[in-house]
Amino acid sequence: EAGAYAAMSPKITVELLRQLRQAMRNTKYIAEPIQAYIVPSGDAHQSENLAPCDCRREFICGFNGSAGTAIVTEKHAAMWTDGRYFLQASQQMDNNWTLMKMGLKETLSQEDWLISVLPENSTVGVDPWIIAADQWKNMSKALAGAGHSLVAVQDNLIDAIWMDRPTRPSTQLLTLGLGFTGLTWQDKMTALRSKMAERKISWFVATALDEIAWLFNLRGSDIEYDPVFFAYAIVGMNTIRLFLDIKRLAVPTVREHLQLDTPSKAELSVQTAPYESVFTELQAVCASLGPKEKVWISDKASCALTQVIPKAHRTLIPYTPLCLAKAVKNATEIQGMKMAHIKDAVALCELFAWLEKEIPKGTVTEISAADKAEELRSQQKDFVGLSFPSISSVGPNGAIIHYKPLPETNRTLSLNEIYLLDSGAQYIDGTTDVTRTMHFGSPSAYEKETFTYVLKGHIAVSAAIFPNGTKGHLLDSFARQALWESGLDYLHGTGHGVGCFLNVHEGPCGISYKTFADEPLEAGMIVSDEPGYYEDGLFGIRIENVVLVVPAKPKYNYRNKGSLTFEPLTLVPIQAKMVNTDLLTQKERDWVNEYHRQCRETIGAELDRQGRKEALDWLIRETQPIA
Amino acid sequence: EAGAYAAMSPKITVELLRQLRQAMRNTKYIAEPIQAYIVPSGDAHQSENLAPCDCRREFICGFNGSAGTAIVTEKHAAMWTDGRYFLQASQQMDNNWTLMKMGLKETLSQEDWLISVLPENSTVGVDPWIIAADQWKNMSKALAGAGHSLVAVQDNLIDAIWMDRPTRPSTQLLTLGLGFTGLTWQDKMTALRSKMAERKISWFVATALDEIAWLFNLRGSDIEYDPVFFAYAIVGMNTIRLFLDIKRLAVPTVREHLQLDTPSKAELSVQTAPYESVFTELQAVCASLGPKEKVWISDKASCALTQVIPKAHRTLIPYTPLCLAKAVKNATEIQGMKMAHIKDAVALCELFAWLEKEIPKGTVTEISAADKAEELRSQQKDFVGLSFPSISSVGPNGAIIHYKPLPETNRTLSLNEIYLLDSGAQYIDGTTDVTRTMHFGSPSAYEKETFTYVLKGHIAVSAAIFPNGTKGHLLDSFARQALWESGLDYLHGTGHGVGCFLNVHEGPCGISYKTFADEPLEAGMIVSDEPGYYEDGLFGIRIENVVLVVPAKPKYNYRNKGSLTFEPLTLVPIQAKMVNTDLLTQKERDWVNEYHRQCRETIGAELDRQGRKEALDWLIRETQPIA
Repeated sequence: EAGAYAAMSPKITVELLRQLRQAMRNTKYIAEPIQAYIVPSGDAHQSENLAPCDCRREFICGFNGSAGTAIVTEKHAAMWTDGRYFLQASQQMDNNWTLMKMGLKETLSQEDWLISVLPENSTVGVDPWIIAADQWKNMSKALAGAGHSLVAVQDNLIDAIWMDRPTRPSTQLLTLGLGFTGLTWQDKMTALRSKMAERKISWFVATALDEIAWLFNLRGSDIEYDPVFFAYAIVGMNTIRLFLDIKRLAVPTVREHLQLDTPSKAELSVQTAPYESVFTELQAVCASLGPKEKVWISDKASCALTQVIPKAHRTLIPYTPLCLAKAVKNATEIQGMKMAHIKDAVALCELFAWLEKEIPKGTVTEISAADKAEELRSQQKDFVGLSFPSISSVGPNGAIIHYKPLPETNRTLSLNEIYLLDSGAQYIDGTTDVTRTMHFGSPSAYEKETFTYVLKGHIAVSAAIFPNGTKGHLLDSFARQALWESGLDYLHGTGHGVGCFLNVHEGPCGISYKTFADEPLEAGMIVSDEPGYYEDGLFGIRIENVVLVVPAKPKYNYRNKGSLTFEPLTLVPIQAKMVNTDLLTQKERDWVNEYHRQCRETIGAELDRQGRKEALDWLIRETQPIA
Repeated sequence: EAGAYAAMSPKITVELLRQLRQAMRNTKYIAEPIQAYIVPSGDAHQSENLAPCDCRREFICGFNGSAGTAIVTEKHAAMWTDGRYFLQASQQMDNNWTLMKMGLKETLSQEDWLISVLPENSTVGVDPWIIAADQWKNMSKALAGAGHSLVAVQDNLIDAIWMDRPTRPSTQLLTLGLGFTGLTWQDKMTALRSKMAERKISWFVATALDEIAWLFNLRGSDIEYDPVFFAYAIVGMNTIRLFLDIKRLAVPTVREHLQLDTPSKAELSVQTAPYESVFTELQAVCASLGPKEKVWISDKASCALTQVIPKAHRTLIPYTPLCLAKAVKNATEIQGMKMAHIKDAVALCELFAWLEKEIPKGTVTEISAADKAEELRSQQKDFVGLSFPSISSVGPNGAIIHYKPLPETNRTLSLNEIYLLDSGAQYIDGTTDVTRTMHFGSPSAYEKETFTYVLKGHIAVSAAIFPNGTKGHLLDSFARQALWESGLDYLHGTGHGVGCFLNVHEGPCGISYKTFADEPLEAGMIVSDEPGYYEDGLFGIRIENVVLVVPAKPKYNYRNKGSLTFEPLTLVPIQAKMVNTDLLTQKERDWVNEYHRQCRETIGAELDRQGRKEALDWLIRETQPIA
């Protein structure tokens, strides 16, 4: 998510709004005119990042932040977004639009606003493919309570007026062999079916793109940063249906991978069908259901697909069996993630050694540093791309948590300001996400003090030992304890699940004060550990490693439950210059020294192998034991 | 809650079940026969403890644990309870009853069991006064899905067959003046109405007994341990209706307190009515509601009262404004709680000094020690009674978390086993709840080690500094960190809210790994801090103080949010002999020494004033600084 943007002139929307309102009355799209049309941000797969063809809310109002919903009535146009985006939205939207500032007391909810502006007995339309079933339910209920009704408009009205709308991407598919996945897609299918059998479920509808990519051991590049492809899957006990752009299946490796041309056991033969046909195919499946048969679908799936399944047959689940299985990495995936992190650390050691040399010349900027990081990563084996937009921020920009440097905001790295780099990459063997905060001159006592509190929090999570079955949110306070003791805090969670050559943010586990329904941590899960501290207008500090959940062996074993702890996969030195060692306990100093010993040993060997001498020297210097 | 009971012969229920089944067909009580009758445990006020007349589930099946639901059909009788009570229930119930072990995979839920045993189109009855509205809804939905229906049976069928059922208690009411409450009931009424006005609420229905007692500054003794009285209240912007046994109003002090005979402003004049008339009065209130008027009621209130309020006018709330206001103690209440804890500590110092002398004689048992504690407490000013059944447990009994000594289980205190005493009292100025774990001989290294981990957890919570707005559950892991590091844990929450001369357990705050919807901690709230460790068959350790949430003043003040910490109200020495000081950090040692300095100073002065020389000597010895 980008928190920065170009301070630009607003998008002129007079003509677009005229066309949209015309469409809202056009019986080509709807039986009866609608009095309001809702444009959520999102695609049909609950994706966090969007393909350009799905950026409909941006198209209609001009605002391109990650979160926002636009509603257009016959007379009004309003857009709801949260505090991160108030300034940006107000600058990107023209005065046909009212900015609805979420989180402020005086701001009406979408429902209340609609009720306040609509004539009696109005009809409100929305594309059922881009609204989640539960959101539909809430909105529908609220409108019905005021005498209005919510209707599904099958043709998207933005698409109807969006003349140069990009086509839905259909990038080349990459097949992953056992050496990367550890399990064939057939193995995964069998495991899924045994979960279904356990819960007496006949069919499972997969809608999340990363789950489908994981299940079939396929990757695409339809969405920037996320190695996924647009598809749906419907799995029965004897049936596998995969819905995607059929042209993608022309590639022999893909046909071979899915065994499309090989006679195979009926229950492992994949029936492919066009992406758009998922709706009618799911209808057909549901029409043939026995009286007690149940269909699993995520409770975040689109209203359109969810409602195809008759209520009596529908079992909504917060986390699908694929989501849960994908979260626990197998030995091959863990090995891949380790390799990816070694390569990533090599690139970062090179970057930091280079920065040390270049910064004094005054020629390195946030953007050029990020570009250099990407260049160095791209030299590593099996590099695919970045895993998210690099947050490369100097001084005050570091305090903007989701900052992304743009020409208008670009600062030069110097010896006087803190530099925060939060970046990561996709490699075929794994996904990385690492943040280091550095000072290339002399940090102030206050900068060191707060950095050290953040480090103490990072260590407290990373070194925590906790019983099997513990949910991640129970560890969040460990990351804050040292900051809290000094009256400080940070306003974001501490960690998120990380995919293996998949999305850099994935469920169902995480470490956050928000007690969303996270699943218990299990050995093999991979999460980030990233506490921070942000001083508005001055600097930002964050220390982030990706860590693997591993069994721990403490002295005792209460009720044979077993214990867990974390093993860092990220192996990049933490700048000792920023640490006030007086504030560390002996245990914490030992942790830092042991961590740096591992960095030196593992990354040093790889730097040596790759003949990157300067980076190796830098690594050795930066991993000296602290006293 | 009692975890121990007399291993007794089961209650013979043949005749009772015959009578109940007769009642289930008797048109005197119901229009049509019902095929099943549900007997929940609970009263009409969501009380944790019950008056004898409300122990209907115990009456019908014999099982007297704190949690359990009985269901009787024409052919079957089954009772659901949890793991704490499997043994007890199996011994207290005869073989007309099937024990349904909750928490085991193979155990059917009440709904599924009913569906499995009922003939088609059955009717299931329940007393709507003792089932919460949301439980009704869930049960009703599940039964309807299987072709059955749930009906409200207005006459309780257990009461119909319970010949010697005790009458509902109607104990003398105690009026509390400003010196105890800090606010008149009129002040509290005004504050409640301003909360109602803020949310545009016309009426509030109070159903929880402690909330009604708090609101009117009245106390009773209708329920053992809880100083409450059976009542309802309905408050409008100009109306106050109090429903209770009218005979209680014959007392002049009560009439005076409520200003029943004094002309007062209409909006502060209390209209009293019989307890039972709340139903018809609420009906009358609802009949007169304007179209947009809203009525507040707790989402835990009985189905009977909740359903009186038409859905369009009903606003369910998880925590009522009284619950929230009551939780934040005012200066007078805090002062009262401090005084109560000083008196309580005096009694406990006396007890422990006495135990030290008496135990070697081999004459002190769990029961006699608990009795002695009660006797010593009763000598203190304004003592009313105990605040819960004393958990007085020796050796292996200490590992039973909710143990209550009975003649059959009673162990003798000795120099060889750990003694755990969790006890508390009601004084007119406050409520106490304290646990100390002691060894009167020589504890083993393992006992000391685990005690020290528990102490570290206790200190970690008590000394925690955290931002304003933090919910209690975020502190729970601090209490477990040291235990977790050694592979240990305890299977209960860390703390609960404590009333001021009210229930020893109260909402809406607490410290638990269970992330129930607890409200953020605020200065003035009072909670317990009670981590523990239990070694089945050997010993139990728990260290519990009642602590007050107070503002903290750390070095910085991030975003002007302010910080909080805890101040112990309980001032009873923690046995140094049980501590392995090598396992404590210097900060923890300092905490113990500062805590003991406060015990010595505050409790020492009071022991001196009361001339309790032996206890004072004991206190001085037990509060020597540790090295």
